[in-house]
Amino acid sequence: MRAVEGGVCAPKGFRASGVAAGIKEGSSQKDCALVVSDRRCAVAGMFTTNVMKAPPVQRSQEVCEGGRARAVFLNSGNANAATGVRGHQDVAATVDHVSTALGLPAEEVCVCSTGVIGVPLPMGRIAKGIDGSVAALSEDGSRDAATAIMTTDTEPKSHALEIEVSGGTVRLGAIAKGAGMVLPNMATMFCIITTDAVFSDAGDLRPLVVDAVRHSFNQIGIDNDMSTSDTVLVLANGASGTAPLAPESDDYEAFGVALKELSRHMAKWLVRDGEGATKFVEISVSGTGTDDEAKAIARAIGNSQLCKTAFFGEDPNWGRFACAVGYAGVEFDPDALDIYLDGVKMCDGGLVTDYEESDAAAVMKQAEFQVRVSVGAGSGEAIFWTSDLSHDYVSINADYRT
Amino acid sequence: MRAVEGGVCAPKGFRASGVAAGIKEGSSQKDCALVVSDRRCAVAGMFTTNVMKAPPVQRSQEVCEGGRARAVFLNSGNANAATGVRGHQDVAATVDHVSTALGLPAEEVCVCSTGVIGVPLPMGRIAKGIDGSVAALSEDGSRDAATAIMTTDTEPKSHALEIEVSGGTVRLGAIAKGAGMVLPNMATMFCIITTDAVFSDAGDLRPLVVDAVRHSFNQIGIDNDMSTSDTVLVLANGASGTAPLAPESDDYEAFGVALKELSRHMAKWLVRDGEGATKFVEISVSGTGTDDEAKAIARAIGNSQLCKTAFFGEDPNWGRFACAVGYAGVEFDPDALDIYLDGVKMCDGGLVTDYEESDAAAVMKQAEFQVRVSVGAGSGEAIFWTSDLSHDYVSINADYRT
Repeated sequence: MRAVEGGVCAPKGFRASGVAAGIKEGSSQKDCALVVSDRRCAVAGMFTTNVMKAPPVQRSQEVCEGGRARAVFLNSGNANAATGVRGHQDVAATVDHVSTALGLPAEEVCVCSTGVIGVPLPMGRIAKGIDGSVAALSEDGSRDAATAIMTTDTEPKSHALEIEVSGGTVRLGAIAKGAGMVLPNMATMFCIITTDAVFSDAGDLRPLVVDAVRHSFNQIGIDNDMSTSDTVLVLANGASGTAPLAPESDDYEAFGVALKELSRHMAKWLVRDGEGATKFVEISVSGTGTDDEAKAIARAIGNSQLCKTAFFGEDPNWGRFACAVGYAGVEFDPDALDIYLDGVKMCDGGLVTDYEESDAAAVMKQAEFQVRVSVGAGSGEAIFWTSDLSHDYVSINADYRT
Repeated sequence: MRAVEGGVCAPKGFRASGVAAGIKEGSSQKDCALVVSDRRCAVAGMFTTNVMKAPPVQRSQEVCEGGRARAVFLNSGNANAATGVRGHQDVAATVDHVSTALGLPAEEVCVCSTGVIGVPLPMGRIAKGIDGSVAALSEDGSRDAATAIMTTDTEPKSHALEIEVSGGTVRLGAIAKGAGMVLPNMATMFCIITTDAVFSDAGDLRPLVVDAVRHSFNQIGIDNDMSTSDTVLVLANGASGTAPLAPESDDYEAFGVALKELSRHMAKWLVRDGEGATKFVEISVSGTGTDDEAKAIARAIGNSQLCKTAFFGEDPNWGRFACAVGYAGVEFDPDALDIYLDGVKMCDGGLVTDYEESDAAAVMKQAEFQVRVSVGAGSGEAIFWTSDLSHDYVSINADYRT
């Protein structure tokens, strides 16, 4: 497995683009993106479980149920959420326009929108954005597409890698945007992954996507607010010309590993570029009865305001970690609790050790470090990636109107 | 029902005190408190459900299981949490010292500790604090006691009220401390309630305490971190000389209402004095199938970092409220969602209304306001009280060591 250039256009047969269409009010920034395959793709996706899920999310879910796709149109600046019947009509009109412009069946067009909610899409500008992004499609377009979906992200996120399978090379590419916030509204996370791997059926792709998302986007937290628009889409167009990836084969497993690796790369990037983030913290939990129990504990620490302000303050405050472990809803023996900051053991069997304060403080001065927790001898384990809670986070989310 | 002076000493037969014993390192602030009844009390309590609950919590739970108490000794500056066998030994020694000094059975002494965790109690100073607080016991001691249990609270919290029942007047008094944080550790909430009401059995008192706590301390959130030491204790000594409060009688119900009112008064006070709080926000949710569903939605809004930064920023950002409603884990029809800021209806049937931005902004400029959410026609409802997430919150919890 090795990194390659080209993002979502690294796999054969994909083009992408990003253009400015004025959706971001009063801005000349890119805000419309398109990712297109030159042939039909197997598609699978994972979506927000928020009851208030936006019309574009519902549309992309329907496409994934069909299992086939050719194109994804994305816009920033407007989430088309909480827009009712009008929102669904605007999705249909967008899909219709994209499918006509590209000469594709409407059933194979996904849409993703992020930005302000409760405001209808400016359909004139969307039309301009579709025409512009179709005209701009290019095999060099991944970075433009990644730029066009940014909200408060500070940099475009585009990445790709390749692996060898029987009969040749398979590539996987991705663009993503993070948990940003656009005045006056909400956090959204997108990741569009392309691959030229061959899948006979979208049903073969789906379990790999579920597994990859579980171990990447579902184990990150920036502010514990789940948006109405979170979307991960994986499109496999088969253009590599290698053999179909048959479930349980070595190549299938290798592809799964690569998909997970790419997803984890993008997920970590989202956390590093989280709003106001100055730290990237890996929470590693082991010793529970089940993986889900470990995940609950890891999430409790990773989402705790007190732990996150301690990260920001570079305060090796293991009591806050212990407290979060205790309220995670998981039963364990408090006398079996061990807590490490990287290599520094701070809590051993529920009791403070004689660690050197300066050693613990040195760990937290790093931009990235690990909090490791063990609560017993069980085989359950989990990883969670989180950022700190900084003054900039509060400023980004509170001070817009001041 | 009317407010009276005297806090925990307002009910007949109670004395209290607060003294400085050097538990708060390098400080001359009061840090030991005592509340004592001149006769045996029926006692009931509610405690943290944190797995890492501290030895003092376990001790007070045992006393409540016995149903009888005479005294509560409290200290700030050290939580005696994550202290293992030593922690339990120190609790036993504290109880022994208090019971000897007061001439009471050890089984009737509760203890509460808040402050730094993972550090053994300084037992020499605790001994000094016990002797000092016994010597200082007074019918005017409620405010001193309330002062001695403060951590990052900005003011002592002492309150009392009285009601008329058959045969006379009954008083209820309280002291409380809020979700403060003491370097280097953790949030803790205490409330000690005294009353001279007559209960034949602690079993009659318990359901009233459960109900009062459910509708007060269990519906507040400052930072969503549940401490290892949260404790509510209610001591009823019967000194009013009125008739025993028999379950289902009018007087019993009236006492329950007063207990709930006092608990709500103290709980709201904790939120108003929450770390860095500049706003007091009531989240009111209705229309769910059950009260628990309404509570889940109210908590989701009240604990959302994005909603809390919007409160701080005075940003009438109903999209964030809608988003939190959507991820609360409660199924509802998004087209039935209504959201109000005080009297301003911002979302009607899942769609933005034509409210005036200036009206919504004016609501949020107030120090206290209400977010009201309805999700349908069910009879479930709940209230949650929360503060905002401010720069001061981050500073208080991150900047100690800078």
